[in-house]
Amino acid sequence: MELKVYCDRMSQPSRAILIFCKTNGLEFEEVKIEIGKGQHRSPEYAAEVNPMKQVPAIVHGDFKLFESHAILIYLASAFPGVADHWYPADVRKRAKVHSVLDWHHSNLRRGSVGFLFNTVFAIAFGMHGDPKAAAEGEKLLLASLATIETFWLQRDAPFLVGNSKPTIADLALVCEVMQLEMGDENDRQRILGPHKKILKWIEDVKSATAPHFEEINTILHPARERLKQLKAEATEKSE
Amino acid sequence: MELKVYCDRMSQPSRAILIFCKTNGLEFEEVKIEIGKGQHRSPEYAAEVNPMKQVPAIVHGDFKLFESHAILIYLASAFPGVADHWYPADVRKRAKVHSVLDWHHSNLRRGSVGFLFNTVFAIAFGMHGDPKAAAEGEKLLLASLATIETFWLQRDAPFLVGNSKPTIADLALVCEVMQLEMGDENDRQRILGPHKKILKWIEDVKSATAPHFEEINTILHPARERLKQLKAEATEKSE
Repeated sequence: MELKVYCDRMSQPSRAILIFCKTNGLEFEEVKIEIGKGQHRSPEYAAEVNPMKQVPAIVHGDFKLFESHAILIYLASAFPGVADHWYPADVRKRAKVHSVLDWHHSNLRRGSVGFLFNTVFAIAFGMHGDPKAAAEGEKLLLASLATIETFWLQRDAPFLVGNSKPTIADLALVCEVMQLEMGDENDRQRILGPHKKILKWIEDVKSATAPHFEEINTILHPARERLKQLKAEATEKSE
Repeated sequence: MELKVYCDRMSQPSRAILIFCKTNGLEFEEVKIEIGKGQHRSPEYAAEVNPMKQVPAIVHGDFKLFESHAILIYLASAFPGVADHWYPADVRKRAKVHSVLDWHHSNLRRGSVGFLFNTVFAIAFGMHGDPKAAAEGEKLLLASLATIETFWLQRDAPFLVGNSKPTIADLALVCEVMQLEMGDENDRQRILGPHKKILKWIEDVKSATAPHFEEINTILHPARERLKQLKAEATEKSE
């Protein structure tokens, strides 16, 4: 039964799913849906893949699924070869993974998207970034990173909630943090620099998923340069 | 092993968990944490129950958990008496439950909270509601309700994703929609009135969880009257 992953490597949850599939040796086809070209908004994509017109989404035989956390859980559960540590069978360990993933929605992800959309993506795509929304996003992003640094990365364990091996939550959250590499490098250093545990955690997730983490993330630097150029052009036009 | 549920019936996810526990005959203690009195922000609550200083949260023996979706999943998994339909063991049916719950975070919940906070709760508690944020919340709320009406409530099935019996997602989302009863009654009728399937779905969830749904929701009307009064007093003072 064929697994198709509909995704755009520009999207952080798309990258999390690709890294997960590759690290666990799942057989799948990567179907590229370019957000920049509006391919996720086509009537065919909505009808055949994801009615919410977003990436990532999967089709596995006759089964369709969207929402990246739900996809990661499904892949970890439906494919017997996936090691238990990614999504532990133990009810309490599993509950902690859900708790992190739910927290992520309203905190790190919301902050990160609010900040990056309004400082980088909006202007690059001909829209106006809202400085107030950017500031609110940054505030939530900073608070979320502080919570990861001081609470979720507990004791001396390398991964979230005191685990010695990564779960799908580590992958989802680290991919979100990596998205900062698409923005201004000074911003990224200012925001991430003080968080030594987070910086080590990123390296630990990278090692645990080598070489796929680096391969899937190769898009980040060329994307940053392209976004910087689009922003410069937009600023020039408006002057 | 004792289960303690730390909650405030003013909070919609708190009510979802209480209805779930009572409907499934779980033995538990309801520990009231009054948000209006700031009890969720006490250092004791943060240290002993939920470091995020929010309700709901549970303590089950030596196990602590927060985030309401994670709690519902844990309760459905850890207590053997809970019927399978609440959180199906089947991997694909379960994945659909996760997909709805994840979608909820960034859509119905975010819209509902943004709308109600800025039209009702802020002014009642001496803060200023932001009209722009209220309008953005309402827009997202309306779009989310339309998606429930036309997509999540599929075919003629009474519950979400075509199910004949409710899952934890039905409970979480219906409790969110019920929160509109704390706001202006004209607003609620304007917003919910056109959605006939949603109105029937609320009744179906109420029947499936009787008599606990109505009992736990008795707080809504007195709360609305109290909030209306606080808003009137605040408006009078500012004039």
